[in-house]
Amino acid sequence: VLTFSHMRRTALILAAIFAAALCALAADGDRPVPFPANYREWVFLSSGLGMNYGPLAARADETPRFDNVFVSPAAYQAFLKTGQWADKTMFVLEVRSSESKGSINIGGHYQAGLAGIEAEVKDRGQWTFYSFDDGVAEGKPFPRTASCYACHSANGAVDNTFVQFYPTLLPVAKAKGTFHLSAR
Amino acid sequence: VLTFSHMRRTALILAAIFAAALCALAADGDRPVPFPANYREWVFLSSGLGMNYGPLAARADETPRFDNVFVSPAAYQAFLKTGQWADKTMFVLEVRSSESKGSINIGGHYQAGLAGIEAEVKDRGQWTFYSFDDGVAEGKPFPRTASCYACHSANGAVDNTFVQFYPTLLPVAKAKGTFHLSAR
Repeated sequence: VLTFSHMRRTALILAAIFAAALCALAADGDRPVPFPANYREWVFLSSGLGMNYGPLAARADETPRFDNVFVSPAAYQAFLKTGQWADKTMFVLEVRSSESKGSINIGGHYQAGLAGIEAEVKDRGQWTFYSFDDGVAEGKPFPRTASCYACHSANGAVDNTFVQFYPTLLPVAKAKGTFHLSAR
Repeated sequence: VLTFSHMRRTALILAAIFAAALCALAADGDRPVPFPANYREWVFLSSGLGMNYGPLAARADETPRFDNVFVSPAAYQAFLKTGQWADKTMFVLEVRSSESKGSINIGGHYQAGLAGIEAEVKDRGQWTFYSFDDGVAEGKPFPRTASCYACHSANGAVDNTFVQFYPTLLPVAKAKGTFHLSAR
């Protein structure tokens, strides 16, 4: 038979399990993420030159860098339908050095060696940024105080992302009414 | 029963059919190709800025243009394994204008409106270039005298293609021994 003290003890154990589960949930967005080894087969969104994305920007004595943005294919398909980023959406920002004179090229800039890889993941509504050190199998979350969080949150045209710079998605977001007008 | 004149007539008919088939083969590489409407979901190879690709280059009074290169997914997978382009490989060159100051961006260049789309297709060993006019469902082959043919043939690092400018494929071609050394 269940005594009152037995029931109370059971309730306490259940409460402790529930609290632990909540804690795991809260910390989950900041867990390491596996490196998406095939991200070059994901959907390309755009490339910029010399846009000075935070920590991976070129130094003043270097040539400007390219940044290529890729998104996971299922997230891209969902965006085309809804103008919104589904849960588990993952962006990869690949930064490359630029070169100007090589082979037959004598002007402009083309892409060369890898300078760094970062990612942005949406997990249960929350976006987390990750850096991938060269050859490491897991991405380390940036602390919530990193400047990427505040900047994306304040200036992203669609839900923390810079759709204003992705020419094929911008008209989709406008048509679906998900484009924040303040981002222009 | 088959008479000699009957056999001769049959032979002439067969010869005519064979000649017609040969003719169709020879012209086949220069047939229009359907516009690959989903090329933005193909594999991105690289993007350059201001590289002045032939007829779609920006005028002197315009900002430089981006050129994005995509390749059909099956061709990409085959290249990773062999360092060579399989038959039916299709490249898409997408040219976009660049902008510099917009939204939060104050330096560098990001991609904007479409300036043109061209393609290169390998068919039974022969490469053909196509232009796609806006909204047209088929690509028109460039005449064999167009400068793209001579330039790609002379300077392509792998089989008529500028693998020297595709940073993730360049090491594959070198490892597989398919990189023309003269292309550097």
